[in-house]
Amino acid sequence: MIKRKELYNEILHLSVSKELNIRFNEVDSLGIVWHGHYISYFEDGREAFGLLHGIDYLTVQREGYTTPIVKSICEHKLPLRYGDVCRIETTFVDTPTAKLIFRYRIFNAHDQLACTGETVQVFLDAANNLVLNTPAFIIDWKKKMGLL
Amino acid sequence: MIKRKELYNEILHLSVSKELNIRFNEVDSLGIVWHGHYISYFEDGREAFGLLHGIDYLTVQREGYTTPIVKSICEHKLPLRYGDVCRIETTFVDTPTAKLIFRYRIFNAHDQLACTGETVQVFLDAANNLVLNTPAFIIDWKKKMGLL
Amino acid sequence: MIKRKELYNEILHLSVSKELNIRFNEVDSLGIVWHGHYISYFEDGREAFGLLHGIDYLTVQREGYTTPIVKSICEHKLPLRYGDVCRIETTFVDTPTAKLIFRYRIFNAHDQLACTGETVQVFLDAANNLVLNTPAFIIDWKKKMGLL
Amino acid sequence: MIKRKELYNEILHLSVSKELNIRFNEVDSLGIVWHGHYISYFEDGREAFGLLHGIDYLTVQREGYTTPIVKSICEHKLPLRYGDVCRIETTFVDTPTAKLIFRYRIFNAHDQLACTGETVQVFLDAANNLVLNTPAFIIDWKKKMGLL
Repeated sequence: MIKRKELYNEILHLSVSKELNIRFNEVDSLGIVWHGHYISYFEDGREAFGLLHGIDYLTVQREGYTTPIVKSICEHKLPLRYGDVCRIETTFVDTPTAKLIFRYRIFNAHDQLACTGETVQVFLDAANNLVLNTPAFIIDWKKKMGLL
Repeated sequence: MIKRKELYNEILHLSVSKELNIRFNEVDSLGIVWHGHYISYFEDGREAFGLLHGIDYLTVQREGYTTPIVKSICEHKLPLRYGDVCRIETTFVDTPTAKLIFRYRIFNAHDQLACTGETVQVFLDAANNLVLNTPAFIIDWKKKMGLL
Repeated sequence: MIKRKELYNEILHLSVSKELNIRFNEVDSLGIVWHGHYISYFEDGREAFGLLHGIDYLTVQREGYTTPIVKSICEHKLPLRYGDVCRIETTFVDTPTAKLIFRYRIFNAHDQLACTGETVQVFLDAANNLVLNTPAFIIDWKKKMGLL
Repeated sequence: MIKRKELYNEILHLSVSKELNIRFNEVDSLGIVWHGHYISYFEDGREAFGLLHGIDYLTVQREGYTTPIVKSICEHKLPLRYGDVCRIETTFVDTPTAKLIFRYRIFNAHDQLACTGETVQVFLDAANNLVLNTPAFIIDWKKKMGLL
């Protein structure tokens, strides 16, 4: 994981756990999940977080923003296999900058840590311009979540 | 392949051959290309055809249409494996109805027929309404191709 | 759907319904699910069927067989969109030949029929040879299901 | 990019450039390539490097090893769009540890830097055990490449 200055603060209680079912077609010829599919699992986790806490993609779009990913990191500790029922934990990382940061932990069928990851998103407005200040609806959301 | 009435006419000389490189991540745990990826190969073939003959996706969009797939058929004769250099042949199937129909033949590294397929596309206008008559730019294109 | 001789018999009560959540990354630039992803949905449906009725991939592998797809058909009636909660119904099609045949119906968020499809699988033994007679464990399974 | 100690050394002349054609199905509903597909582009780049310089997947497997990815990083500077002809540069990063490290730079149709990335692979032997010392065939390869 990238070393972060103290202004990035993982909010441990703002975390959502979601079951992951490994698809047959996500497993490669070595019998393990192909590493690229984890990026899709992170999106599943991020979506579960957004739906539970009211900042899902469609809400963000209705507010007039899109939030493209500008950085992804993925570290693999243990392989995942077809038939495994896994779990992804998605945790919000608070930052005063105009970004959305999430950390991910994927646990295998034996509840062992199999993968960690992080994504960083920025805000674009309706004209596709980068937004330099955190949008008002995110400020409101952070207040509601007790972060501000 | 679905049996067709005589008004569907495979135009054997309107065919484009394109090299296919099998990606590592397209191969499943049985060591063969997962069957769903062939739909992407068909799209590669269709795009090669469109680019060569001037009816690629972006041209169609500039004309004010989209052409969603309404039917796909895929039949597998032989498996494909990672490292194989294969080839897809995409052939235009002429029809008086307002559809785009293509047939596909994928040949393996030994030039054996590994897969056949077919896709059917319809035309939607800018308002997403189904177009019942073949658009003028397709009529013009068919004339240019000697089909009308 | 391909016209079948009477020896193919859709077993309407051998059907499994499964919720489908459309992923953001399955939607294309037209705002609808890219047609190739339906093949993955069919696999989700087939897996749900197999797990419920005891003929899932891992069971089949333990019996010493693999069951590659030799044919897929997919027909689209209505588009699916991100955020839709859909449903796939997977129905067993009985045949005396050494094949596994499934039919699929995908319903959109308003329970409208959005897609139909069919897959055909054959049996390969441990030496990757095509099996011409239905394997004993499938005969047993059909008896248990009241098909024989 | 992760800050690295001086023992990681990007070998600028050990770099391979490969054309990337953006597929229609790689573009999301925002009209840009979905971020997860870059991991597949990195694999394309790594494969082009391996094939040119004799350390491709199949060669590595013949030597009795597999090289799973244990870390991926991807940073996006500019979006990529359907129809763009892009380019990926894959550069070898030398390390005395038993790892394969590659850096990636993706350039868009205007030759602007659109994405940077890095992958780290380890070596597993035929029994799937982690190899702690660089395999002999990699040592030989590094000598041939003038790195040792």
